[in-house]
Amino acid sequence: MHNFMEPKSVALIGISRKSGPGSFNLMENMVKFGFRGDIFPVNPNTGEILGKKAYPNVGAVKKKIDLAVISAPRETTLSILQDCVAAKIKAAIVVNQGFTDADRCGNEMQQQMTEIAGRDGIRILGPNTLGVINSFNNFTTSFMPVAKDRVPVGLICQSGIHLVGPAKFSGKVGKGIDLGNACDIGFYDALKYFGEDPEIKIIVIHMEGLNQGKEFLSLAGRVVNEKPIVVHKTGSSKTGARAAMSHTGSMAGNYGLLKAALKQADVTFLEEGGQMPHAVKTLLNHPGMKGSRVGVITYSGGAGIMVSDGLESYGLQLASYSPETINQVAKLSPAWMPLANPLDIWPAVMLHGGRKAYSVALKAVLNDPHVDGVICIAIAPSPEFSFLDVSDSLNKALEEFPPNKPVIAWIYGPNTAEVKKRFESKNRIMIYPTLKIATWALSLLRDRYKIIKRHRKP
Amino acid sequence: MHNFMEPKSVALIGISRKSGPGSFNLMENMVKFGFRGDIFPVNPNTGEILGKKAYPNVGAVKKKIDLAVISAPRETTLSILQDCVAAKIKAAIVVNQGFTDADRCGNEMQQQMTEIAGRDGIRILGPNTLGVINSFNNFTTSFMPVAKDRVPVGLICQSGIHLVGPAKFSGKVGKGIDLGNACDIGFYDALKYFGEDPEIKIIVIHMEGLNQGKEFLSLAGRVVNEKPIVVHKTGSSKTGARAAMSHTGSMAGNYGLLKAALKQADVTFLEEGGQMPHAVKTLLNHPGMKGSRVGVITYSGGAGIMVSDGLESYGLQLASYSPETINQVAKLSPAWMPLANPLDIWPAVMLHGGRKAYSVALKAVLNDPHVDGVICIAIAPSPEFSFLDVSDSLNKALEEFPPNKPVIAWIYGPNTAEVKKRFESKNRIMIYPTLKIATWALSLLRDRYKIIKRHRKP
Repeated sequence: MHNFMEPKSVALIGISRKSGPGSFNLMENMVKFGFRGDIFPVNPNTGEILGKKAYPNVGAVKKKIDLAVISAPRETTLSILQDCVAAKIKAAIVVNQGFTDADRCGNEMQQQMTEIAGRDGIRILGPNTLGVINSFNNFTTSFMPVAKDRVPVGLICQSGIHLVGPAKFSGKVGKGIDLGNACDIGFYDALKYFGEDPEIKIIVIHMEGLNQGKEFLSLAGRVVNEKPIVVHKTGSSKTGARAAMSHTGSMAGNYGLLKAALKQADVTFLEEGGQMPHAVKTLLNHPGMKGSRVGVITYSGGAGIMVSDGLESYGLQLASYSPETINQVAKLSPAWMPLANPLDIWPAVMLHGGRKAYSVALKAVLNDPHVDGVICIAIAPSPEFSFLDVSDSLNKALEEFPPNKPVIAWIYGPNTAEVKKRFESKNRIMIYPTLKIATWALSLLRDRYKIIKRHRKP
Repeated sequence: MHNFMEPKSVALIGISRKSGPGSFNLMENMVKFGFRGDIFPVNPNTGEILGKKAYPNVGAVKKKIDLAVISAPRETTLSILQDCVAAKIKAAIVVNQGFTDADRCGNEMQQQMTEIAGRDGIRILGPNTLGVINSFNNFTTSFMPVAKDRVPVGLICQSGIHLVGPAKFSGKVGKGIDLGNACDIGFYDALKYFGEDPEIKIIVIHMEGLNQGKEFLSLAGRVVNEKPIVVHKTGSSKTGARAAMSHTGSMAGNYGLLKAALKQADVTFLEEGGQMPHAVKTLLNHPGMKGSRVGVITYSGGAGIMVSDGLESYGLQLASYSPETINQVAKLSPAWMPLANPLDIWPAVMLHGGRKAYSVALKAVLNDPHVDGVICIAIAPSPEFSFLDVSDSLNKALEEFPPNKPVIAWIYGPNTAEVKKRFESKNRIMIYPTLKIATWALSLLRDRYKIIKRHRKP
């Protein structure tokens, strides 16, 4: 994978002379993304592309080429690959579609591609792919604009949407590999690369179909020891599986069996794609949770009920606070206020202000030996009522504690976007859009702790 | 309820002299919200509050008072209510807490409140409530700041968070009634009011416990004929039910039985609170869906698979497009492109641009007699790539069609917030955060159509 992810020289075969929006010129995108290696455009119809000398074919370059990126009509792809083999290129990305994603003819061409890869010493990524992103190395082969984010998130996917619109998927992408139809390079190769990559701390996978299942599962079971692996397998339904066949020619396989096998390998298995950004931020920023006893602190009794429902549905429990914890908050509350878990601090807020009440409550709950993790429910007030915003005081309170108990939060009110940023600014308290997702996030951290513990056993 | 929602004169009993942020002065909030009726502050310790003459007790006002709003220590609440009865006030809101939400003493006081309401000709909202919002009438009794939105959404809740942070719940609140501990005014009264209110088109309910269940269910079964009713019942779990008891003293009841009864009454029942904003915007803006055959149009084959999974999980099907539909898009696509449902128009976009390809596809799919509703999957590009944004062209295409088939969308990319606004600007195409929620939204519209049809049968 090194030739794909960290090439020093790249041939762009079939690259267009058109540039600017609407041209989807991947050379333009590559330069804009900051790639500083050598680029050799190959196009027989012109002598120059975007200020660089163009070559009539890849053989004419006569320099060492680490990676060829091919975007050409499907009919010419096989002969271009043969040219690459002749030029001793060891890695090629086939961007264009029209293979197993299309018709019988495309299917046959892709089979020949696979044969070339096995026989002629060239590895092939794709076809039907945007290729790769490496934010750490300023390299991308995507013809669609992509963001550069030096986050330790390694993404393996079979659809370009994960690279183009990561906010809806892994959140951000530090390094990404789009397998497309996966004629040669598959999940195993990509997982191996990210598993060994010190810049990657979490691996996120969007899977339509899995080849080399046995090898992949065995590798995943080892990698997950060090790095969480999050998988969203699509094609869980019959109709979805049919659609997968027509998208990347993937055999979706038996969803239930694959799910069981992935879970067995301690992979974090997502039931649906919308969970992905929440899973990633959770596993990336929070420690594992040692047990299932959750402390809830809330501005709102109504929300306390909602979160209780969520906890129970994920096999978590409301911690039984120790008397000392209750006592700390009782000192701030009216005498008639019943205090338990969820810990409703609103009367204390009315008497002593949000910052003091919440800070006292959070410290008490974190010090409580009966608590494994904490959910804070708070308001995101308008600027005029900023004295109710406790994001800064909670982050400050957390400075006194080692990061061994996860603390997450859910906020409501007129200013959630801004207050969310403040909560998350120290990477200690992540915010979730619903209480259901917040409780689910804690359940991932409980599972993560079990995995780490199991793997680290002598 | 009219005295509560449209009072001409209000006595504010126990109102504080303090104002400004941190004082939670509901008189200040009421004036700021635009209430133009008479306000009589009652406070024995001062002669004037916020520029208005203050009275030592409500009996001293000597003018017609439609509504009394009481925020006072719990020990004084009963005698204040007796004063209100003596002053011939017919409606009172008890804001303060410390009743069934607290201890035995509070429980007894609330029982006496209920007795007063039954015996002395006064209706009581609360205790433990923010009271009401009526955006159409510029009236609120909330001591927390609330937004004024003249939307036809009537909210009934048992927790102030729904009024303070509606974005996480019903989206926006046109009129709201916080029942709090519901010592007297309950779900039945509030539903009756909104059921008859021509300014309200959809009724959203957050329920911790239900009194007068039989009357409520019977009424709901009639109201739902004209207006969708969306219910989120909290306390579904054992721990949640215990928390409900301590929040508003509500008997959460048997969740399963109540859920079945509400569904039987054709109420839209939510499994969790996070679904609420999506349910409201769906039922408010889209027509019912006549069948379960869904047409999908997509920029991304990968997303087409995801949406197929979602459809199947909600009992919806991918429509079988008629040859004419396929033919319209085939004219714009490469010959090798397999076209089916989900309809992957990306190759057509590459050849003819997003706007043309998507517009042709949407019109073809809407004209297809085999299609009952449509999901559009599209990109939310950065401004530089705005030619890929199809929000305007899809809204324009929809102008040619009557609103009898719902069209919803899911978008991904770097600019989802902005492009979402453009999609939703005509109230014809609503956007959802995940494909799972998008497919669920269509299932609500299929259910809504069945309800309307059933109720309208001769």
